Amino acid sequence: MENNIDNLRHSCAHLLAAAVLELYPDAKRTIGPPVESGFYYDFDFGDEKVSEDDLKKIEKRMQELVKHWKGFERQDLSKQEALDMFSDNQYKKELIEEFSEVGQTLTAYKSGDFIDLCRGGHCEEPNKELQNFKLLKVAGAYWRGDEKNKMLTRIYGTCFASKQELKDYLFMLEEAKKRDHRKIGKELDLFTFSELVGSGLPLFTPKGTLLREQLNDFSQQLREKVGFQKVWIPHITKKELYERSGHWAKFGGELFLVESQETSDEMVLKPMNCPHHQQIYASQMRSYRDLPIKYLETTTVYRDEKAGELLGLSRVRCITQDDSHIFCTPDQIQQVYGELISIVKEFYGVIGMKLRARLSYRDSATPEKYIGDEDLWKQAQEIILEIARKHELDYYEAEGEAAFYGPKIDFMAVDALGREWQVATPQLDFVQPDRFGIKYTDQDGQEKTPVMIHFALMGSIERFLSVYIEHTAGNFPLWLSPTQVLILPVSTEKHLNGARALADEFKRAGIRVEVDEADETVGKKIRNSAKMKIPYVLVVGEKELSGEDLTVRVRGQEEQETMPKSRFLEKISHEIAEKK
Amino acid sequence: MENNIDNLRHSCAHLLAAAVLELYPDAKRTIGPPVESGFYYDFDFGDEKVSEDDLKKIEKRMQELVKHWKGFERQDLSKQEALDMFSDNQYKKELIEEFSEVGQTLTAYKSGDFIDLCRGGHCEEPNKELQNFKLLKVAGAYWRGDEKNKMLTRIYGTCFASKQELKDYLFMLEEAKKRDHRKIGKELDLFTFSELVGSGLPLFTPKGTLLREQLNDFSQQLREKVGFQKVWIPHITKKELYERSGHWAKFGGELFLVESQETSDEMVLKPMNCPHHQQIYASQMRSYRDLPIKYLETTTVYRDEKAGELLGLSRVRCITQDDSHIFCTPDQIQQVYGELISIVKEFYGVIGMKLRARLSYRDSATPEKYIGDEDLWKQAQEIILEIARKHELDYYEAEGEAAFYGPKIDFMAVDALGREWQVATPQLDFVQPDRFGIKYTDQDGQEKTPVMIHFALMGSIERFLSVYIEHTAGNFPLWLSPTQVLILPVSTEKHLNGARALADEFKRAGIRVEVDEADETVGKKIRNSAKMKIPYVLVVGEKELSGEDLTVRVRGQEEQETMPKSRFLEKISHEIAEKK
Repeated sequence: MENNIDNLRHSCAHLLAAAVLELYPDAKRTIGPPVESGFYYDFDFGDEKVSEDDLKKIEKRMQELVKHWKGFERQDLSKQEALDMFSDNQYKKELIEEFSEVGQTLTAYKSGDFIDLCRGGHCEEPNKELQNFKLLKVAGAYWRGDEKNKMLTRIYGTCFASKQELKDYLFMLEEAKKRDHRKIGKELDLFTFSELVGSGLPLFTPKGTLLREQLNDFSQQLREKVGFQKVWIPHITKKELYERSGHWAKFGGELFLVESQETSDEMVLKPMNCPHHQQIYASQMRSYRDLPIKYLETTTVYRDEKAGELLGLSRVRCITQDDSHIFCTPDQIQQVYGELISIVKEFYGVIGMKLRARLSYRDSATPEKYIGDEDLWKQAQEIILEIARKHELDYYEAEGEAAFYGPKIDFMAVDALGREWQVATPQLDFVQPDRFGIKYTDQDGQEKTPVMIHFALMGSIERFLSVYIEHTAGNFPLWLSPTQVLILPVSTEKHLNGARALADEFKRAGIRVEVDEADETVGKKIRNSAKMKIPYVLVVGEKELSGEDLTVRVRGQEEQETMPKSRFLEKISHEIAEKK
Repeated sequence: MENNIDNLRHSCAHLLAAAVLELYPDAKRTIGPPVESGFYYDFDFGDEKVSEDDLKKIEKRMQELVKHWKGFERQDLSKQEALDMFSDNQYKKELIEEFSEVGQTLTAYKSGDFIDLCRGGHCEEPNKELQNFKLLKVAGAYWRGDEKNKMLTRIYGTCFASKQELKDYLFMLEEAKKRDHRKIGKELDLFTFSELVGSGLPLFTPKGTLLREQLNDFSQQLREKVGFQKVWIPHITKKELYERSGHWAKFGGELFLVESQETSDEMVLKPMNCPHHQQIYASQMRSYRDLPIKYLETTTVYRDEKAGELLGLSRVRCITQDDSHIFCTPDQIQQVYGELISIVKEFYGVIGMKLRARLSYRDSATPEKYIGDEDLWKQAQEIILEIARKHELDYYEAEGEAAFYGPKIDFMAVDALGREWQVATPQLDFVQPDRFGIKYTDQDGQEKTPVMIHFALMGSIERFLSVYIEHTAGNFPLWLSPTQVLILPVSTEKHLNGARALADEFKRAGIRVEVDEADETVGKKIRNSAKMKIPYVLVVGEKELSGEDLTVRVRGQEEQETMPKSRFLEKISHEIAEKK
């Protein structure tokens, strides 16, 4: 299945190139692979500028051309034939030279009048199958992804087997654009960026901070209920800590280095918390009676991402993790995992996202990429699988997705647009405790090495927020809404004091309430409250302030509701307590 | 007064040197100034080792010598005379050369047979006044504080005008040693250090974290009650932020630099939070109607202290501030300060420490050390003084203690040993908002610059903890105690389940309770609970578990109390709620 759709999309890339070369005879084509949910083709347009305004025209040409494409006809080429065929295209010539060097057979595929250097993988009958395509956007891309090379023009498109699938996908794209967390984050005043602070470093406003904190408190409460205890660590450490843990050898180049001007200490910003937490474990003698020991801490780690890869809250340089580490005996693994899985299910149940579980194993073809003993890995992977079965997770297995020190269960949350996001990840680690030499005294008086389990519920709070904002389109449930109730005085002059007194009453009941005191019409204020996606809006005038029923505007609902103040207070207090 | 005691102590340093030279004829003396609460003298003992065991002997010699010291006799020296006098002492010769270079008169002072190079400042009649002294400790110290120089031996001592003052001081020192927060921190398992993480970087265990968090929650609640809102910022920033704020020019050398391996960004670890918070303010248009805007955030800043200056939690490289910043109109300063002062009074009232207020002004002799306009400074200092008077603070004024951007009220908390510690510091800042160009639109439609007030309640939580642990000697009040109630089963075999059930009942009531499950005698467990300074201990056996009255051991109290379980629960719930 996957292959078929890739073949279709790659065929569509050919079609794109054919249309482009007819419309822009001086353009040089380079490569055009299928990608996740579509395809692209990179062109060198020389001095000519091609923009998204031109996509309609190209698409139209594609529709005309494809009528005459009955199949893809293979031609085997000698190196010289290939070079002759692309004598005016330095990009293709570069590829031909390289392919020849490694002894690869050179082939070209022809459909209609268009022939392209290509390894194959196409649909059978383009004139029938290639019907449901769409060009999507234009972007810059360096030749071979190297910023030292020329910047080419990349045209993205997508293609599906059926009209309905294309329609659904385009709808999803539109919807995703509307839900873009960067756009909503700005509209709802959740976070901001500052050029003086730098890229990938968001600053959270009071509203955004409230959202973070509520989610984090919930994540924490779920863990505290099963005996997790908060600890606290600083954000920097001597490099030595990571040399010992093995992280330095693996990720040294991706860390922020910290330079002390006063001492010669070689330090780094922490990119994870496990080695620090192990130092707390190591600060005391531990007995089997003390285990499992469960630490939790929400703390920010820093990773030195390339500037070009940063994107809103999805890819940042400061990553706040709702992290935890469990130290236990091998016998306790199953029980601990049981607790963690219950927590994950409860959290994402409340959040309203379905879960799939990816069992992330090491790549058995490249054992050198991982640390730790062969047998321990096998044992750990078997435990993970057994747990997934026992807890009836909707799981699949994936080689090569493990952490370098152990396998993990990656929970994938499915959002409102059907997209999957990696969230909670309990990881089993037999390796690090050994590297740090941490111990416990067992019932038999012997010193033994505990097993460590790494566990974060949201993972990165910043990334989770980017997903969650898009999942809800900013329509946060009541318990998470920065402003839960907005009170609009009919006349700012006459009803402001009454509105404020009402707000104070709500505040005392623990409700986040605001009064819109601006000198605007009620109509404008109502429209504004809808833009701010506030769950409940109360317009209060003489009647309401004199004790008559409140008229409640409910977000996303046409008809207003009328009820006594006491019932409204009861209703929303209940909804908040139930995390609705 | 201050001068007299300094003269006395400096005289005592002479006496120390005289005694040392008699006992160790090869020792080379260097300098011997008075310091806060005592004096020291640095010696080069050559190959000889002098330790604290030798102090008694030296002290005895001092007592004998001083009988013959009737005064200090001044001698003016030419450079040559001075060099001849100290021909065998390279340290003194170095000083003589330097003093001569800057044209300083060279003088020596003689008492008894002892003569020393000295600028003067002594007591009148050493044989009468110099009676109440004590040598305290021996430490290493580099010549002139430079680690490239030779390590000398520093002998510390103290001296008072009266026997009683000396006695009180020595008692206080003994008491301080018992209360040393590093010792108590270890005994109560509050925090730890790891060589792999580095010096000045504490790691907080669950118990210590609980203490931090409880204090911080309280600090936060007090501010939230008057409208402060939490924000969130990352720990790193481009250097540019501090160039703009003025911090870079002032403190550039004390910052940790952050090196990106992936980009060419010049970054630093934040040493304060105000510039970041201003970026959040700057992310929106603000109206006079929005002011005051009050941000709060507990977040860690990093300062590159010299390794030799680090000490437990008192001097660390990671400083967690319960920070806040208020943006207001000039008219609102008085009202905001009123709120802040009430908060400070409430917090330290609960904490149980008396407050004095230091009004920290700039040094009028060195205006170049501060940024901002002359008039603004005057105005700001007047406002501060007016506020101190209005709120009837126990205040004193101090020149040269201001921040470089504005004056502040430094609240000094007095601990159980009478020591003063700087804690909360509301700072008035007319300068930074101007530098960042942040604005609000005033009632008249004009754009104006808000005033910023910096405010932390504990200041550095780490440093506050060091003070508070010593203030309480680890006897934390119930609401802050990591373990509030400890349950000891009379027989681990027979009463463990009952003890656990009781603990669960307490937990449900929100009480932090533990069961001591170790296989030890009840006597040993009781002694251990006293060491852990647990407020309430319940020994439970057959009788207690069958519903009879509980016998309650109260920390620091001889006689036990007997009461029904319900009354005990009520009693401690009340104490916790009242922060007792």
